[in-house]
Amino acid sequence: MALTLYELGGLDDRRYSLFSWRTRMALAHKGLTPDYKPVRVSDKAAIAFSKQDKVPILIDGETVIHDSFRIAQHLEKNHGGASLFGGEIGQALARFFNSWVDRTLLARLAPMVWLDLQGIVDEADARHLRGVMEKAFGKTLEELAANRDKDVVAFRRLLDPARASLRSQPFISGAQPAYADYILFSLFQWARIVSPFALLEPDDALAAWRERMLDLHAGLARSVSARA
Amino acid sequence: MALTLYELGGLDDRRYSLFSWRTRMALAHKGLTPDYKPVRVSDKAAIAFSKQDKVPILIDGETVIHDSFRIAQHLEKNHGGASLFGGEIGQALARFFNSWVDRTLLARLAPMVWLDLQGIVDEADARHLRGVMEKAFGKTLEELAANRDKDVVAFRRLLDPARASLRSQPFISGAQPAYADYILFSLFQWARIVSPFALLEPDDALAAWRERMLDLHAGLARSVSARA
Repeated sequence: MALTLYELGGLDDRRYSLFSWRTRMALAHKGLTPDYKPVRVSDKAAIAFSKQDKVPILIDGETVIHDSFRIAQHLEKNHGGASLFGGEIGQALARFFNSWVDRTLLARLAPMVWLDLQGIVDEADARHLRGVMEKAFGKTLEELAANRDKDVVAFRRLLDPARASLRSQPFISGAQPAYADYILFSLFQWARIVSPFALLEPDDALAAWRERMLDLHAGLARSVSARA
Repeated sequence: MALTLYELGGLDDRRYSLFSWRTRMALAHKGLTPDYKPVRVSDKAAIAFSKQDKVPILIDGETVIHDSFRIAQHLEKNHGGASLFGGEIGQALARFFNSWVDRTLLARLAPMVWLDLQGIVDEADARHLRGVMEKAFGKTLEELAANRDKDVVAFRRLLDPARASLRSQPFISGAQPAYADYILFSLFQWARIVSPFALLEPDDALAAWRERMLDLHAGLARSVSARA
């Protein structure tokens, strides 16, 4: 059955949507290869067929699914290959992990790298993205990024519970990576595509984990154009 | 095989150790009933046999295990009944959840209720517990609790990722409770045993979840003496 993934595309074909990276890695985990359709963030007409305005969107045969977590649930239910969740409890706890990453980490990460995002999209998208972020935070992108050398220290501390997991296992999900790893990894993949800013110190256990994630699935995440 | 759980005991037989509550609920989840051995927190001689100085300690036949997470792993591996983790990925993510609760929530909760703990232990334990906490935070227990009406608002906000899980499912672990639920619940159970202070607002989804947790296993957690 044909699979198509709609995702954000920037200049030089940069695929910078972090939520799409969760889906990209989940598809690869299942041994699935979709057709990729890049969409400019300001071009809502291109995804009007989905009756909502956000990517990623996965088309799987007759089914149209949006929201990265729902896409992962769909893949788990309808496709074989390695498990993304390892059962009901694992899926429930991955849902918690998803909320933790989005509510705790993403809100701290975005201000540090959003300014750099301006450099990898076209002018209309740059204006659109600036507007979204400056409205949400009530500050200019320049103001938001101004203290990032200090802000990143607090960001690294927030990662402590994930770092603790890596003391006894190579991946957040245990001996092998699974969907929770892709959730957290998506932040770092997004950041390295849009910005040269160093999020982790080289001796951080999470930096070694990130390298392992970049190696997965024949280097799927490492192979794309990035700035860090 | 005989099971014995060593745990903190206070005045009027209050069993206030939050880590022990994780084990108590995990044992009940497995349909197991241990003998309970209360230990005063300042009485390290009573648990010297375990070659370390912390409770809970579970004795399962010939095996002596300490650390609540390791006890849960032991129970999962060696006893039947309902699963605590639902497989390897579930166990790995429960480990993350354990770190999140202990590093993020417990450090904020303890200062708010530790002063009240003084009222349910004997004088030697009260001195011991005051010493531990005042050394760790560099403030008196009275100073730590002084702003708890404000501090609790920040604490409630930290619970957001757990609250988000309850929008689509009755328990953190999904349709049924499992070990992650017991991890988080242990904080609330500890707090209600030691303090009348209201941690949650009545209309919080987590307050309804807490009631469901109190009902589990024939009301095991609800049945004990508490102050809230």
